[in-house]
Amino acid sequence: MEYIKDLKWKKGINVKDLVEQLGNVGFQSIELKRASNVFEKMKMAGAKIFFTFTSNMVTSGLRGFFAQLINLKMANVIVTTVGGIEEDIMKAHGEKFQMGRFDLDDLELKEKGLNRIGNLLIDNQSYLILEDMLNEMLKKCYEKQKRWTPSELFREIGLMLNDENSILYQAAKNNVPIFCPAITDGAFGFHLYMFQQKHPDFMIDVIQDFKNIVLCTSHDEKKGIISLGGSISKHHAILAGLINGGMEFAVYMTTAEQKSGSMSGATTREAKSWGKIKDESDAATVIGDVSILFPLAMIHALENLIENKIIN
Amino acid sequence: MEYIKDLKWKKGINVKDLVEQLGNVGFQSIELKRASNVFEKMKMAGAKIFFTFTSNMVTSGLRGFFAQLINLKMANVIVTTVGGIEEDIMKAHGEKFQMGRFDLDDLELKEKGLNRIGNLLIDNQSYLILEDMLNEMLKKCYEKQKRWTPSELFREIGLMLNDENSILYQAAKNNVPIFCPAITDGAFGFHLYMFQQKHPDFMIDVIQDFKNIVLCTSHDEKKGIISLGGSISKHHAILAGLINGGMEFAVYMTTAEQKSGSMSGATTREAKSWGKIKDESDAATVIGDVSILFPLAMIHALENLIENKIIN
Amino acid sequence: MEYIKDLKWKKGINVKDLVEQLGNVGFQSIELKRASNVFEKMKMAGAKIFFTFTSNMVTSGLRGFFAQLINLKMANVIVTTVGGIEEDIMKAHGEKFQMGRFDLDDLELKEKGLNRIGNLLIDNQSYLILEDMLNEMLKKCYEKQKRWTPSELFREIGLMLNDENSILYQAAKNNVPIFCPAITDGAFGFHLYMFQQKHPDFMIDVIQDFKNIVLCTSHDEKKGIISLGGSISKHHAILAGLINGGMEFAVYMTTAEQKSGSMSGATTREAKSWGKIKDESDAATVIGDVSILFPLAMIHALENLIENKIIN
Amino acid sequence: MEYIKDLKWKKGINVKDLVEQLGNVGFQSIELKRASNVFEKMKMAGAKIFFTFTSNMVTSGLRGFFAQLINLKMANVIVTTVGGIEEDIMKAHGEKFQMGRFDLDDLELKEKGLNRIGNLLIDNQSYLILEDMLNEMLKKCYEKQKRWTPSELFREIGLMLNDENSILYQAAKNNVPIFCPAITDGAFGFHLYMFQQKHPDFMIDVIQDFKNIVLCTSHDEKKGIISLGGSISKHHAILAGLINGGMEFAVYMTTAEQKSGSMSGATTREAKSWGKIKDESDAATVIGDVSILFPLAMIHALENLIENKIIN
Repeated sequence: MEYIKDLKWKKGINVKDLVEQLGNVGFQSIELKRASNVFEKMKMAGAKIFFTFTSNMVTSGLRGFFAQLINLKMANVIVTTVGGIEEDIMKAHGEKFQMGRFDLDDLELKEKGLNRIGNLLIDNQSYLILEDMLNEMLKKCYEKQKRWTPSELFREIGLMLNDENSILYQAAKNNVPIFCPAITDGAFGFHLYMFQQKHPDFMIDVIQDFKNIVLCTSHDEKKGIISLGGSISKHHAILAGLINGGMEFAVYMTTAEQKSGSMSGATTREAKSWGKIKDESDAATVIGDVSILFPLAMIHALENLIENKIIN
Repeated sequence: MEYIKDLKWKKGINVKDLVEQLGNVGFQSIELKRASNVFEKMKMAGAKIFFTFTSNMVTSGLRGFFAQLINLKMANVIVTTVGGIEEDIMKAHGEKFQMGRFDLDDLELKEKGLNRIGNLLIDNQSYLILEDMLNEMLKKCYEKQKRWTPSELFREIGLMLNDENSILYQAAKNNVPIFCPAITDGAFGFHLYMFQQKHPDFMIDVIQDFKNIVLCTSHDEKKGIISLGGSISKHHAILAGLINGGMEFAVYMTTAEQKSGSMSGATTREAKSWGKIKDESDAATVIGDVSILFPLAMIHALENLIENKIIN
Repeated sequence: MEYIKDLKWKKGINVKDLVEQLGNVGFQSIELKRASNVFEKMKMAGAKIFFTFTSNMVTSGLRGFFAQLINLKMANVIVTTVGGIEEDIMKAHGEKFQMGRFDLDDLELKEKGLNRIGNLLIDNQSYLILEDMLNEMLKKCYEKQKRWTPSELFREIGLMLNDENSILYQAAKNNVPIFCPAITDGAFGFHLYMFQQKHPDFMIDVIQDFKNIVLCTSHDEKKGIISLGGSISKHHAILAGLINGGMEFAVYMTTAEQKSGSMSGATTREAKSWGKIKDESDAATVIGDVSILFPLAMIHALENLIENKIIN
Repeated sequence: MEYIKDLKWKKGINVKDLVEQLGNVGFQSIELKRASNVFEKMKMAGAKIFFTFTSNMVTSGLRGFFAQLINLKMANVIVTTVGGIEEDIMKAHGEKFQMGRFDLDDLELKEKGLNRIGNLLIDNQSYLILEDMLNEMLKKCYEKQKRWTPSELFREIGLMLNDENSILYQAAKNNVPIFCPAITDGAFGFHLYMFQQKHPDFMIDVIQDFKNIVLCTSHDEKKGIISLGGSISKHHAILAGLINGGMEFAVYMTTAEQKSGSMSGATTREAKSWGKIKDESDAATVIGDVSILFPLAMIHALENLIENKIIN
C-alpha cells in the first residue's frame, strides 16, 4: 500500500528528487513517476526501444534532448512525421526559430513571413534554405542509387550533417533507423516531387521500409515504446511491435484523450485488447504537454540509470 | 449585432430548425452554426472541396454518411489514413462492428478476439477476411500494371466493391480521388509487403501521388477544406491547398486544441499565418466529438442546399 | 449484441430520428443516446430529478430551454451558481447579451464596456440594471422577514418576475427550489453586502438551506441527477443524493475529464465508489459542450416521453 | 527577440536550471516559465497575493507544499472549496490517503469503504474521524461566540491544529485568511447543520465574509492572483480583485480550456475585458495538471527569490 505524501521544497532541490516526491503527490504526477520507472525498466531489461514523436516537438527545443537520448542509447528505433525531419535539417544548418505567443495576429505574421506553430514561429527564409539543402542532398543520394527507402535516405542525410544536437546526425552515427511512413507529407514531399520530375527513375519505396521496421526486431527480443504525442508515428511503432508479438514496455505521453476514439488518444490499456502491448507489460499513460512532462520523467530515469551504471 | 436567443423545443422539431436555433445559443453551438454556413458557402461558390477524416470515423457509422456526401458531390477530394480504407473494405464485405464501452476489460476482449477502438470493437475475424480480399484485389491490380500510386489503387479497389455505403465505392463512381500519404501504416501495409515479397517489381509510388494531389486543383480554382479530426489527413490536404495559393473556405472539427502546438489542434486562425488558408477566407473551428457535431452541421447545410436546388 | 450502423441523412430528418441513429454511430454519439435514455428512465420511474448547471449556460440561450424543462416537470430541484441567477434576472428584465468570438480583443471590449464570457458578451449596463432590480427586490424581501435562506430568497424573487423564459419564474411557479451554496460569489453577493451594511439584522442562513436540500428528498424516493458542467452545483446535488442513499439515475455532461482528479471531471463511475450513485444505477457520462449535447439528448427524450403521454 | 534553444540534460541538474531551460523549449513549457516569472514579480512588487485552489489539490500531496508557501509569505489570502478544509483537518490528525489508479473497480472500492478521487483514495474511516473532530471544534467555537464567518471559523480551527504541513495551521499562524464562499458544500456542511439543529442560535454569516474579502485589500495596494484549478475559488478571488480595481499580476493554471465558456477555463486574457485583471498586468495562463506544473514553476521562483534575499 502506498500513501500520498506532502511535497516539500528544499533549497537547490534537483530534478531527480522532485520527481521522486511527485510520485506520491497525486493525479498526473503519480503517472509521471510511473512512466519514469517504465523508462528505467525497459533500459535495464535491454529492450529495443521504439521512440516516436510528432514534428512539433522538433520545432521545440526538445530536439536537442532527443539527439542526446539517441547518443545515450535510450532510443533504438525512431518513428516520426516528415515535418520534424525538415526542421531538424534547418536547425542543423543554424536556422533559429522564434518564441511567440498563441494569440499573435496571424495576418500580421504572414506579412512578416513568419509561420506559427502554437507559440513558436518559423521564418519563410528557413524553408528556402531547406530547399537548397535538400536539392543538393537528393542529388548526392541519387548519384549513389536510384531507389531509396525513407529510412535509408534519412540516414544518408544524417551523415551529411554535422551537429551534435541533430536527431538525424545522432541517429546516423548511432545506427538508429528513422522511419517515416508519410515521407511526402510536407515540404520534403514537394522537393521529392520536383526531383522526380527531373529524374523519373528516382523512386521512394515505402513498402521496403515497412519490411525494414518489421524486421528490425523480433518476437524473441524484448521491446519497449516511448510514444510522445499521437499520429501515425505512434501507430506505426506499435504496429511494428504488434507484428512482433507486442511490446513488453510502453509509455504514452500526450494531450489527446480516449473520448473520441482517436489513435492519438488511445491508452496503453486499449492497446492490450489488440495485443499491441503484452498483457503483463509495464505500461503508463500520462496526459499533458510533452514539453514539460517528458524531460522531467526522462531526467529522473537517466539519473537513476547513470547511478546504476546502465548508461554513462 | 447578433444576440443570444432563448432556445425553445417544439414537438417534432427537425434538425435544420434546431441547428438554426443553436446558432444563437452560445459557445460551441455558435461555432457549429458558423461551420454549417461555411459548408453552404463553399458549395454555393463551386469550390473544390477537400474532405479529410481519420480512420476511427470509418470505424464508426459516419462511414455511410461520408459515402452519401460523396454521392451528393459535397466532397471532391478525399484524404484519409489507411485504417479507414481497411475498415471500409471490411464493411463493404458485410463485416459488422460491435458497440462496446470505454471501460471494458481489455484483457478479456483480447481473449475473445475483439480489438477496441474507444467504445467500438472489431473482431479479429474481420481482419482475416480483409487479408483474403486484399490478396485477391492486389493480384488483379498487379495484372493490370506493376506500379501504382495509392489513389489509383484505391480507385481500382473501389470499382471492385458493390456497396452504396462504401466510401471507396462512391469515390470511384463519382471520380473522387482518395489520397493517403501513409499507405503502409496499417494491415494494408503488411499485405503490400507480403505481396511485394512475392512480386518484387510491384511498386507503390508515393511521390507521384503527391503530384496528383497538387495538380488536382489550381491557384485559379476556389478551394475549400472540411477537416474532421487531425493527423496527416488534415495536414496533407492543407499542404496541397497551400501549394495552390491557399483555401478560400475552411472548417476544422476536432477534439484537439492548440495548447500543445500539434498539427491536430492547430486552428484555422493559425493556418492563416502560413497562407494555408487565405486571409479573407470563411473559416470556422469547432471543438468537440465529430460523431455528433458533423452530422448536425452538415445536415443543416444539406437541407438549405437542397432547398436552394444546389444539390438534389 | 448491438452493432454500428451507417448513418444516413433523409431530407427533413427530425431531431428524434437523428439521435436515434447517433445511438449506433460511435464514440460520444453512443454515450449521448445512452444519456437520453437515462433521462427517459428517470422520468418514467417518477424519480425526483436534481438538475444542476453552471452560470455560463444561463448566459447562453440554454436558459429558455431550462425554463421550459422546469415547466415540463423535467427538473424538480435545481442547484446552480449565483452568476446564473443574476443573468436570469437581467434577461427577465429584457437585457440582451451579444454574440462575439473567442478571439476578440479584450482591451477593446473593456473600453466598450463589454464583458466577455467565451464567445458571448454582457454589457456593463446590464449589471447596473441588475443593481437597481436587486435593491428593490431585497427591500421587499426584507420587509417580509429578516432572515432568508438562498432558496427562499430566489423563490421570492422568481415570484416578482414575469417572463416565461425565466428559470427563477418557472421554478417559483412550479414549486421547484433553487439551491445555490455560494450565494455571495458574484454581483449578487456585493449587493447583499451593501444591503446588510444598511440593515445589519438582514441575514442569509446557508446552513438552513443545507437542511432544505437534504430534506427535499428521502431514502425511499427514487432520485435522479442531470448535471451539466462541473463546479459546486454538481457536487452539492450529488452530496444531497449521497446523504439520502445515493441516486438511482445519473447523467453527467461536461468538457472536464477525470485526468486531474477534479470534481468537475469526475465520472459517474467514480461516484459509485462514494455511494453517490447507487451500484445498480442507470448512469451515463458524455464529454463535450453542453450547448450542443444537452438539447439533442433532451429533445430526443422529450419526444419519446410525449409520445408515451408521460409529459404533455 | 527570443529564440528556441535545444534542451540538454546535465547530470544532477536541479529544478531551477531545468525550468530556466524549459523557458526556451516550446508550447506549455514557455508558458510555465512565464508563470514562474510572474510569481517572482508579484512578490518583488510587494503585492498582496490571492492564492486559490480546489479541494482535490489538498487530497494530493500539494497540501504540504501549500502550507510551506504560506509560511514563506507567498500567499496572503486564500480562497478554496470546503472539501480541502475537511481533508486538511483529517491529515492534520494523521489520516493517510492511499494511492490508487484511475481505472480501479469502483464497486470493489465501495465494498472496502474507499472513496476514489481520480487516482487517490480516501477511507471512510477518515470521515468518521473528521466528524468527531468537527463536533469538538464547533463546540469550542460556539462557546466563544454564536455567529461566525467562514474565515473566522477556519482561523479558530487552524489554531487548534498542530501540524506544520497543515494549510489551516500555517494560515492561522501567519494571519492569512481562508475564504470559502460555499462552506456548506461538503461533509463540513452536514456537521454544521447537525450542530445548528442542537444550537439554533449558531449562525454562519457568509455576507460578512464577503465584506472581509473585499476589505482585505484596497485599490491602492498592488494585488496578484495565483489560481490553481477553476471553480468558485478562482472566481471569488478575482471578484474581490475586480471590486478593488483589478489585479496587477495573475497566473492561472488549470486543465480547463475556454472552449465551453466556463469560469474554470476562462483565460487571463478574458479577465481583462472585465477589468478583473488590469490592462498592463503581468499575466500567464498555463494549461495542464497542477500537480506537476505548479511545483516546477513555483520552485523556480522560490530559488530566485531566496537568491535575491526576498524570502528566506
